[in-house]
Amino acid sequence: MRSPCKPKTFGLQGQTKQDMANHTITFTGENINITVTVPTGTLLAEAAQQAGVEIGQPCGGQGRCGRCAVQVTEGDVRRRSTLRLSENALSRGYALACQSVVESSATIFVPPQDKIERNLTTDRIAAEISVPTDYEYPLYQTVRRIHLELTPPSMDDQTDDWSRLQTVLRLQSKIEYISAPLALLRKIGTILREAEWCATAIIATDPDNGSPAQLIDLLPTHIDEFSPLWGIAVDIGTTTVSLWLVNLITGQVQSQVAEYNGQIARGEDVISRIMYASKQGGEEMSQRVLDTINLLLERACKRAKIKPHQVVKATIAGNSTMIHLLLNIPAASIRLSPFITAINQPPILCAKEVGLNIHDNAPVDCLPGVASYVGADITAGVLSSGMSMSEQIVLFLDVGTNGEIVLGNQDWLVTCACSAGPAFEGAGVVNGMRATTGAIEEVWINGDTYEPGIRVIGGEKPKGVCGSGLISLLAEMFLAGLLDKAGNINLTLNTKRVRKGKHGGEYVIAWAEETQHGEDIAISHVDVDNLLRAKAAIYAGFTVLAEQVGVRLEDTAKVLIGGSFGKYINVEKAIQIGLLPDMPWEQFEFLGNTSVRGSYYALLDWRSRQQIKEIASRMTYIELSADNTFFEAFTSASFLPHTDLSKFPSVEAVVSNQANN
Amino acid sequence: MRSPCKPKTFGLQGQTKQDMANHTITFTGENINITVTVPTGTLLAEAAQQAGVEIGQPCGGQGRCGRCAVQVTEGDVRRRSTLRLSENALSRGYALACQSVVESSATIFVPPQDKIERNLTTDRIAAEISVPTDYEYPLYQTVRRIHLELTPPSMDDQTDDWSRLQTVLRLQSKIEYISAPLALLRKIGTILREAEWCATAIIATDPDNGSPAQLIDLLPTHIDEFSPLWGIAVDIGTTTVSLWLVNLITGQVQSQVAEYNGQIARGEDVISRIMYASKQGGEEMSQRVLDTINLLLERACKRAKIKPHQVVKATIAGNSTMIHLLLNIPAASIRLSPFITAINQPPILCAKEVGLNIHDNAPVDCLPGVASYVGADITAGVLSSGMSMSEQIVLFLDVGTNGEIVLGNQDWLVTCACSAGPAFEGAGVVNGMRATTGAIEEVWINGDTYEPGIRVIGGEKPKGVCGSGLISLLAEMFLAGLLDKAGNINLTLNTKRVRKGKHGGEYVIAWAEETQHGEDIAISHVDVDNLLRAKAAIYAGFTVLAEQVGVRLEDTAKVLIGGSFGKYINVEKAIQIGLLPDMPWEQFEFLGNTSVRGSYYALLDWRSRQQIKEIASRMTYIELSADNTFFEAFTSASFLPHTDLSKFPSVEAVVSNQANN
Repeated sequence: MRSPCKPKTFGLQGQTKQDMANHTITFTGENINITVTVPTGTLLAEAAQQAGVEIGQPCGGQGRCGRCAVQVTEGDVRRRSTLRLSENALSRGYALACQSVVESSATIFVPPQDKIERNLTTDRIAAEISVPTDYEYPLYQTVRRIHLELTPPSMDDQTDDWSRLQTVLRLQSKIEYISAPLALLRKIGTILREAEWCATAIIATDPDNGSPAQLIDLLPTHIDEFSPLWGIAVDIGTTTVSLWLVNLITGQVQSQVAEYNGQIARGEDVISRIMYASKQGGEEMSQRVLDTINLLLERACKRAKIKPHQVVKATIAGNSTMIHLLLNIPAASIRLSPFITAINQPPILCAKEVGLNIHDNAPVDCLPGVASYVGADITAGVLSSGMSMSEQIVLFLDVGTNGEIVLGNQDWLVTCACSAGPAFEGAGVVNGMRATTGAIEEVWINGDTYEPGIRVIGGEKPKGVCGSGLISLLAEMFLAGLLDKAGNINLTLNTKRVRKGKHGGEYVIAWAEETQHGEDIAISHVDVDNLLRAKAAIYAGFTVLAEQVGVRLEDTAKVLIGGSFGKYINVEKAIQIGLLPDMPWEQFEFLGNTSVRGSYYALLDWRSRQQIKEIASRMTYIELSADNTFFEAFTSASFLPHTDLSKFPSVEAVVSNQANN
Repeated sequence: MRSPCKPKTFGLQGQTKQDMANHTITFTGENINITVTVPTGTLLAEAAQQAGVEIGQPCGGQGRCGRCAVQVTEGDVRRRSTLRLSENALSRGYALACQSVVESSATIFVPPQDKIERNLTTDRIAAEISVPTDYEYPLYQTVRRIHLELTPPSMDDQTDDWSRLQTVLRLQSKIEYISAPLALLRKIGTILREAEWCATAIIATDPDNGSPAQLIDLLPTHIDEFSPLWGIAVDIGTTTVSLWLVNLITGQVQSQVAEYNGQIARGEDVISRIMYASKQGGEEMSQRVLDTINLLLERACKRAKIKPHQVVKATIAGNSTMIHLLLNIPAASIRLSPFITAINQPPILCAKEVGLNIHDNAPVDCLPGVASYVGADITAGVLSSGMSMSEQIVLFLDVGTNGEIVLGNQDWLVTCACSAGPAFEGAGVVNGMRATTGAIEEVWINGDTYEPGIRVIGGEKPKGVCGSGLISLLAEMFLAGLLDKAGNINLTLNTKRVRKGKHGGEYVIAWAEETQHGEDIAISHVDVDNLLRAKAAIYAGFTVLAEQVGVRLEDTAKVLIGGSFGKYINVEKAIQIGLLPDMPWEQFEFLGNTSVRGSYYALLDWRSRQQIKEIASRMTYIELSADNTFFEAFTSASFLPHTDLSKFPSVEAVVSNQANN
């Protein structure tokens, strides 16, 4: 199963720009007949996206799930991996769209896909969501719709409106005490009379603490019990905010949208945002992310043809800084030793006080976090990854703008955070950029000529290099001998692509005439240093964590990688640079945005919500900066792939193999 | 003890304007030495007030408590009543200030008074408040101050601020779950650090329902446990709003203030206010009464040298319409059959959402009412009157702008409301006015000459007639033969004072040259009609109520009269016009503002608060308009004093005595 070293097989090494001709790819299938022109090296999945043809990639395009299999009916494609494809399927021309590269014109049959919305602006592939099979709205949803038929008041029964309503609600819901916000109490009399005493109540319970149930709304009509009831699951990432619009009755995700966090303009990472908020007051930061969420809400609702105020519940995941900034709670103490959050478990708030444009009275549940740098994104991620239920030991990495690590199983969970920084999201690297159109997302370097082959998102001229491109670039440069173990660029090689630049030695990936902006795209020694520090922080993080609890990495049954970053990286190359541990590829699993998925589970089912709380309470947080262990591990990991090459046998093999050639 | 008929003894009949000379009254006593000039007929209590000399009148000036006794050391006064004065005291020249009238110059020694604040603008006498003897702040107060010493966070203890605070709060308060409003959560981190982890929390519990305890504030200092903690007890009357500022630690009332309800400008009675609010939207009405309360708050706080936001709890009593209008809850259905309130038992709200200028997070407890016309003013009144604990049957009348009646004892309570209207507050009577300076508050009519003697509040020229004046006027006119049983003015009498005016027959109480405005003050047949309807409604109300439960009025041990109206009326005259039942005077007790007193008890002690809730739930409301019984009783009572004179033996005696003269 394991293929330790295939870069040369799959790469485009040796190809020059002239070789990268365009090819026509025709997609066929049920209601599908479309042709697009794409350059050599384009992934089939990319070509399909360009054609507007939906091909699901639940594993995030890592060739692990086999769900993106398509049938090549004319011409052929280069198959980089055929994992999960049977001999039979291969014989009938099947290929994985996420693992197959266009090298000539071809016709591709796309089998009927599971219905998946693809609405994300920044995520290239919408996650495929299956409603938990044991979800039953009447049992597990905290927001309920209750049909009410009241006896109208009369001279013989002068009970006040609110008591009359409460009595019927109590009978129907079996809840002893139901409260209502003043703004709603102001309306109930009018609504009940307009409804001629036959109305629909929406109530929210809070099984978690002592709060009484809340009346969210009273509608002057009878509403069909199967008509949708709406909620949103939100993940506030430092870089990207994701929002899922969910029908709480069926559990189905109606639409998924994502957008850059509007706070980016005030800082790329959490530290700079905390500093900005501390200096300028928190209102602006709060408003910026609220604007983003409200924009996404608007977008999702428009698609579903509903109004935002029809959304009656929200759950929000996010790292601790994001939750503090959203709620305008000062986050200054997060940044300063001893790194304390103001609040890890916010009470359930109402939408109006938070500033969300959903129903004013809708409960807003900010999920519980653990510590300053292990927030609700991680507790939600641990839930959705399933690791907290696993019998075997699992390592969970959430590599987004920060790097958070959890190790454990159903019996224990330890966690730490390493300030990896957003280098892999393009920050701190001169030509770094996020994974959008124009970003170089994969690089192959010819070991003899040092000429690169590149794949660019959207197939256009490149503008910069995104995270997966940087990992790929580092690995290729190391294996080609352009970088030594310490990350120094070898300026003695016989190629114009290495040179001395403003920031020391540098390697040119694309010449000015090949780029969108007309300037060379190069990577400097300083960039490499930043990237090595980021990858070393992550590697050191999980190795120290494992050491602290006496677990060997070999004992972990699985490495689960969450975060949008993880979705597109190449495991092999990530191992080659020493970012991921050298383990069989099958043991890695890319889960995409585990945080929003956990937020979704918590939105649907109070049991999941309680599990997240349990996860938060039983997770032991280990502060890495508490002693020198981390610093030593970090220093050792700041090399390519590591000072101790014996930890990376597969890389050792490649390196010695190349040396022998 | 009973003195059935003394008007001629006490009256000023036969005196003309010339007789009403001025006299100098000198008050002496501890730190007292002041002389004022007052006209003949001025009450000593009035003269003292004019002199700024404090003489407590806990019974409201009815001569029942004996607390206003003063010693006449030079000259003399006319003693209208000497109840509660011993022979010995009389022999030493003592007189009741509230029952003694100036007829010549005199020197009056004022004994040291119990400390009573007199801050009311509309009430002439501040009630004397004694803290309930069984009040213990730590046991019975729902708002508590908790001193906290927290372990500062460290690298070894990275617990978030809110959990750290909750843990200590939980230990100190024994309360499992404590919530906090978002606005306060935003501040706790900063406060705890400013306080160097040694702070004072103010929390509020709600023993009545399932709500969790609330953190109201966190103060960055250690506060002495005996320093005051402030609350306010409010009564929103249709006419007058009363506010007591209370130290919740000791239970003592720091100051009492009252002011006209700012809504008066938009209607004298509840019906016209409901109509205005329905037409114009409720915001203005809500704001008007909030402005009044906030003004009173400012005034009381200034006096106590504290800031309004130091007030951390409020209880509010008031009739159902007042509570609806305060909270801007539509009150339209109160006015229309079947007369339904939107809400009788509002949940505990927070000051900010209500609009009170006390501490933003302070709980505002609007006390529970029973029905549209039996509100929290009555449940609070019943509590403070003590009738719900009485073994004997008690009749409780709250005669303010409306008339509410409760009959019962510790085992049962029935209640009804009669739309008496504000006739006795001066509305619906051409020359009617409220009990302020310039109001004629007592009238005596010479049975031979039909010339009146009057007493005017403040001793100035009269402007009009207030409630007690109108009762006195009606009684005197009836006994002098100016009015027949049906309320018709006898135009055949030999006096210029009766004449035919715009509104039918009328009687002139003061000629133009004697009045402030230079016009005659007269009472017309139409005015009399309105007054008879008002008194008939009240009388019919309690008689029907008694009949419905099979109780004879003779079986009632006491008649308790609440409301500011009740404070100054003369029982004898009120019986003579058939407003009060013909019972021995000792059985009447005037309690003043029972509503604000009940509000005060509820503010202090959660047991009292629960009692009010129990009173509300066990009070059976009887809708008088449900059948004809009330209408028939009302018709019979619309005469002077009643169609059935046998119900008023004392009046019958006077009438026949006069006829015999």
